Amino acid sequence: MSSGLQFGAGIWLFGQFIDRYATNAYGPPVGTIEAIERAGRVGGLVGLDINYPFPEEDLSLEQVKEALERNGLRAIAVTPVIYDQRFARGSFTHPDPAVRQQAIELGKQATDVARALGADYVKFWPGQDGYDYPFQADHLQLWDFTVNGIRAVAETNPDMQYAIEYKAKEPRVHLVLSSSARTLLAIQEMGVKNVGIVMDLGHSLFAKETPAEALQLIARHGKLTSIEVNDNWREWDDDLAVASIHLIETIEFLQAVERIGWQRPILLDQFPFREDPVEAARVSIKRIQALERLRQRLDQAALKEAQEKQDALQAQQLIFAALLGLDGGEE
Amino acid sequence: MSSGLQFGAGIWLFGQFIDRYATNAYGPPVGTIEAIERAGRVGGLVGLDINYPFPEEDLSLEQVKEALERNGLRAIAVTPVIYDQRFARGSFTHPDPAVRQQAIELGKQATDVARALGADYVKFWPGQDGYDYPFQADHLQLWDFTVNGIRAVAETNPDMQYAIEYKAKEPRVHLVLSSSARTLLAIQEMGVKNVGIVMDLGHSLFAKETPAEALQLIARHGKLTSIEVNDNWREWDDDLAVASIHLIETIEFLQAVERIGWQRPILLDQFPFREDPVEAARVSIKRIQALERLRQRLDQAALKEAQEKQDALQAQQLIFAALLGLDGGEE
Amino acid sequence: MSSGLQFGAGIWLFGQFIDRYATNAYGPPVGTIEAIERAGRVGGLVGLDINYPFPEEDLSLEQVKEALERNGLRAIAVTPVIYDQRFARGSFTHPDPAVRQQAIELGKQATDVARALGADYVKFWPGQDGYDYPFQADHLQLWDFTVNGIRAVAETNPDMQYAIEYKAKEPRVHLVLSSSARTLLAIQEMGVKNVGIVMDLGHSLFAKETPAEALQLIARHGKLTSIEVNDNWREWDDDLAVASIHLIETIEFLQAVERIGWQRPILLDQFPFREDPVEAARVSIKRIQALERLRQRLDQAALKEAQEKQDALQAQQLIFAALLGLDGGEE
Amino acid sequence: MSSGLQFGAGIWLFGQFIDRYATNAYGPPVGTIEAIERAGRVGGLVGLDINYPFPEEDLSLEQVKEALERNGLRAIAVTPVIYDQRFARGSFTHPDPAVRQQAIELGKQATDVARALGADYVKFWPGQDGYDYPFQADHLQLWDFTVNGIRAVAETNPDMQYAIEYKAKEPRVHLVLSSSARTLLAIQEMGVKNVGIVMDLGHSLFAKETPAEALQLIARHGKLTSIEVNDNWREWDDDLAVASIHLIETIEFLQAVERIGWQRPILLDQFPFREDPVEAARVSIKRIQALERLRQRLDQAALKEAQEKQDALQAQQLIFAALLGLDGGEE
Repeated sequence: MSSGLQFGAGIWLFGQFIDRYATNAYGPPVGTIEAIERAGRVGGLVGLDINYPFPEEDLSLEQVKEALERNGLRAIAVTPVIYDQRFARGSFTHPDPAVRQQAIELGKQATDVARALGADYVKFWPGQDGYDYPFQADHLQLWDFTVNGIRAVAETNPDMQYAIEYKAKEPRVHLVLSSSARTLLAIQEMGVKNVGIVMDLGHSLFAKETPAEALQLIARHGKLTSIEVNDNWREWDDDLAVASIHLIETIEFLQAVERIGWQRPILLDQFPFREDPVEAARVSIKRIQALERLRQRLDQAALKEAQEKQDALQAQQLIFAALLGLDGGEE
Repeated sequence: MSSGLQFGAGIWLFGQFIDRYATNAYGPPVGTIEAIERAGRVGGLVGLDINYPFPEEDLSLEQVKEALERNGLRAIAVTPVIYDQRFARGSFTHPDPAVRQQAIELGKQATDVARALGADYVKFWPGQDGYDYPFQADHLQLWDFTVNGIRAVAETNPDMQYAIEYKAKEPRVHLVLSSSARTLLAIQEMGVKNVGIVMDLGHSLFAKETPAEALQLIARHGKLTSIEVNDNWREWDDDLAVASIHLIETIEFLQAVERIGWQRPILLDQFPFREDPVEAARVSIKRIQALERLRQRLDQAALKEAQEKQDALQAQQLIFAALLGLDGGEE
Repeated sequence: MSSGLQFGAGIWLFGQFIDRYATNAYGPPVGTIEAIERAGRVGGLVGLDINYPFPEEDLSLEQVKEALERNGLRAIAVTPVIYDQRFARGSFTHPDPAVRQQAIELGKQATDVARALGADYVKFWPGQDGYDYPFQADHLQLWDFTVNGIRAVAETNPDMQYAIEYKAKEPRVHLVLSSSARTLLAIQEMGVKNVGIVMDLGHSLFAKETPAEALQLIARHGKLTSIEVNDNWREWDDDLAVASIHLIETIEFLQAVERIGWQRPILLDQFPFREDPVEAARVSIKRIQALERLRQRLDQAALKEAQEKQDALQAQQLIFAALLGLDGGEE
Repeated sequence: MSSGLQFGAGIWLFGQFIDRYATNAYGPPVGTIEAIERAGRVGGLVGLDINYPFPEEDLSLEQVKEALERNGLRAIAVTPVIYDQRFARGSFTHPDPAVRQQAIELGKQATDVARALGADYVKFWPGQDGYDYPFQADHLQLWDFTVNGIRAVAETNPDMQYAIEYKAKEPRVHLVLSSSARTLLAIQEMGVKNVGIVMDLGHSLFAKETPAEALQLIARHGKLTSIEVNDNWREWDDDLAVASIHLIETIEFLQAVERIGWQRPILLDQFPFREDPVEAARVSIKRIQALERLRQRLDQAALKEAQEKQDALQAQQLIFAALLGLDGGEE
């Protein structure tokens, strides 16, 4: 590997995809073990973010652990499925307190699974927590339910690290935890030390943030638990291969990753509906590695100087010089 | 009914919803006959746009006809499912000519079904025809495949009316026929007389068009085959109940519907993931009827005069006077 | 007045408009005194947010005070012009420390003017503080400069209230303080008690926030200094008359304004490039008053119940019943 | 030059910038002659698109011609200023027929100037023709006024080429000729042969088109009169240096430029509010030239094959191989 970066992936990258139109799915069913084996075939992954419960009722934790080991992988994270039918009208914010409690209980079970698998953190992605229509909800009540629910899980497991993955929307039309800044405010309200943020590069682009800035802001608050990467057209969470569209901003993001001293894995979060998932993962990894090599060609001192002057043309010239093989004078 | 408008609906409004996260669906399975019965319970519908093939392999056309009749409904349109697994990489634009031919064949079969059911038109919604990544495709080839494929169906059935429903994206990240103007150009290239447009109010909002203008432009070109209605947040095809968000623009759209002399049904196209579908349909119908009554309170002569002066404040004052029960002087 | 709400306006609403294309302006020049007189003619305003320095070098504070009194107005706020030629490359974030200091000094002068005029607060709208190109700036340095600059002004005047008006972009392509949550985080870092937020309804819509929620979140943090209102198409700060487009969301916003117990004026922030400004202001005021009356017809107990169930259709039905004069059963 | 492309620019790139906030401008005034001299200093330009009337009342055509010659430039186009104070409420669509006629007359005068300067075409950018508020206008009347006005100019000068530059919005909130497809339809209605399109890459990105596709579609219709280039964040017409953000899509666009056999100049359309304009122009030119060299390293046969398979990963791999210096196997 040309860079020191380590890579992981969400296990869903290797599974079956479905959407509201292709209700018979984009491909055949894929079991958990098969998904792990596909991940193993990528060749550059150190571990996975694994959904719980497993789709297969009879699959044991032991079988999952064995499959991971057999493929040279480890569990990086466990993500409880708080966004399927049971939680269609909300998980931590469901209007029925019994369902809210179910979300909390599932969070606790996922914690046990994370411990058993040796995962670094439990990730909450509350994709059903929000609203669809104006006037549908008491917005601060949704906020409070979110804060209370995640805190309830985190408080009972002070030794486990939790992380929230924010996203502007989907499947809910509007999600409560929609941006990095809002999520930082929510975490402050929780008043616990073991809840951080999974920053997804694509979600940040989609939320119209400056990803390189959001990453550093989260890190400065001491709340960066993990990083996921992909790309999109900035209007939806398209989950495409890394840097496919936002190449320049991905380089700027990788600069920020180095700057904050990131040592843990970067996880691929892609939905290759119509592509081979193993190849789609490899493409992203090789592309990031190539961008890391490119960054090593960057004249960092000159870039720092240009940025201190906020000299856009000069700063960009340095990037394009590295990217297009030009010396500074020529570009 | 307080207005002369007739209402239909897409049969999918009454079916089971699923998406890429709630892969176990938002509710239990719903068969075709049950969906028709739900439609019948709405009380204000004259007919349905029906997907073909039916999800149930053993369901006969006769059974569908009987269910429609029993519920006081008729088939307004037939929409072939050219966007499921088989067509995941494209229907009319699939890279494999054999699959492109399958799309054409399915279009012809849907035509036969439309004839058998007495439907007014066959609708093509080529939701998988487009691209996801920069450089993925030869764009004019996609365009030509689209034109050729739809023409191939239309030419062999000159007695049937066809209609294209344009949409900016989803499930493909970029669709070929993304706007009203582009679809008009494509229809021109087809050189056949029996292909028109289904204008979906939500797709027009989502495409950042002015729906009232797009409707009139399509009608002026003689290509308006049908109208579908719903609402969204203008950044995705949320398929919410009519006028939930864009109330003012929906009134402007209904003005245009009257102006072009529309006599055929208006079809509801909603995806009430978390709501009761019968109630969701009723809400839209009653709201449109209320807006029709409101339009009758509008001082149309004064509005016409304000629009000729392009006097925004005066034109809006007339709308708000009707909407908020104020006389012109007070608002 | 049908509601207890008081109204103010930005003085710019009554001035001359110019943009990058109509460089000879949309109308003739308007002096400060004339703008105040126009504001007086509106009839429903209690005061103004006044820019400083005044465009006229020889205009005295006394003359401004007299003009305000003569027109039954007071100074609600003073907004230093930290976004013109001198600050084209930034005010608090300018790369040159001398210019950053000029911004701070201007903030202090504006404070003196605010005291002399009896204004409630000094508003900072740092519209040039941000970046245009990827890689142009060290993002956290911009953040720190912003925090430090505003704190420097606020610390030296602990008796004066300051407020930040956030905005996603314009004139800078990306502004540092782009959203309510980011601004709350920045204010926390300042560590002073006299800096709050001016929430502009249009900026919130444009930032793709839920305005009713953002308002309550800011108020809960004790940081709501003032409210400005207008409307736009949610993709730019169009500064149109209130509720012209987002009628439903404006009602939801007004519900939140009442809920937080707001007693101070609401300020109009419009740019009627092609309309009569006095009429444009009147339209907004009358419309808000009409919406306030409408809110009084709302069945608040039923709405609360619907929101607790997160029942979108029921909650919306109550709004539409009030809006379209329907009883609940009929809609 | 490493590519056969020729470059021009809009004269405004070298002028004074102003906007609605920095009403005292971003820099000192720049006269027409000085702007031409700045253009001459770029070193890579063959000509200019020149606004008419000139800002200086006493400037003669001879003086302009001499300045162009002295700087090795020619007049590529003349763009009448149909968007300043006089036309603030519309040019071809102004509600007052007398002002509509003034727009037509100015178009004819610009034609005379274009003839005198030997320009290739007269460009219409009807930036004030549209609407701001729902219900403000009779939309098809706006459409007809636009078609009629441009036709009136073109018919009386059959020997001159005209071109329409479409744009989604600004300064009007909604422009009539907002997209390539809509403009093609409008040109069809005109029924004249001498009206084409200026495709501005940034406007296409901003209109959420696929620029490489829009270019080919316009060319296929035989209506491509000229090309302008720049970049933006796809939500506004930021007029930044070429490829600053959308590098990959700019390469795809340049592929299309070659594919249609474009031989005429490509014009820079930038607004370097805070940058040196000569440097901003040079940066774009050198960057395009570097991308042209990169395109020569592209394996075009393999790309064509990948596109025929619509194989996104393979097609992108070829781009990244050329861009990051990787061989195909490695990326």
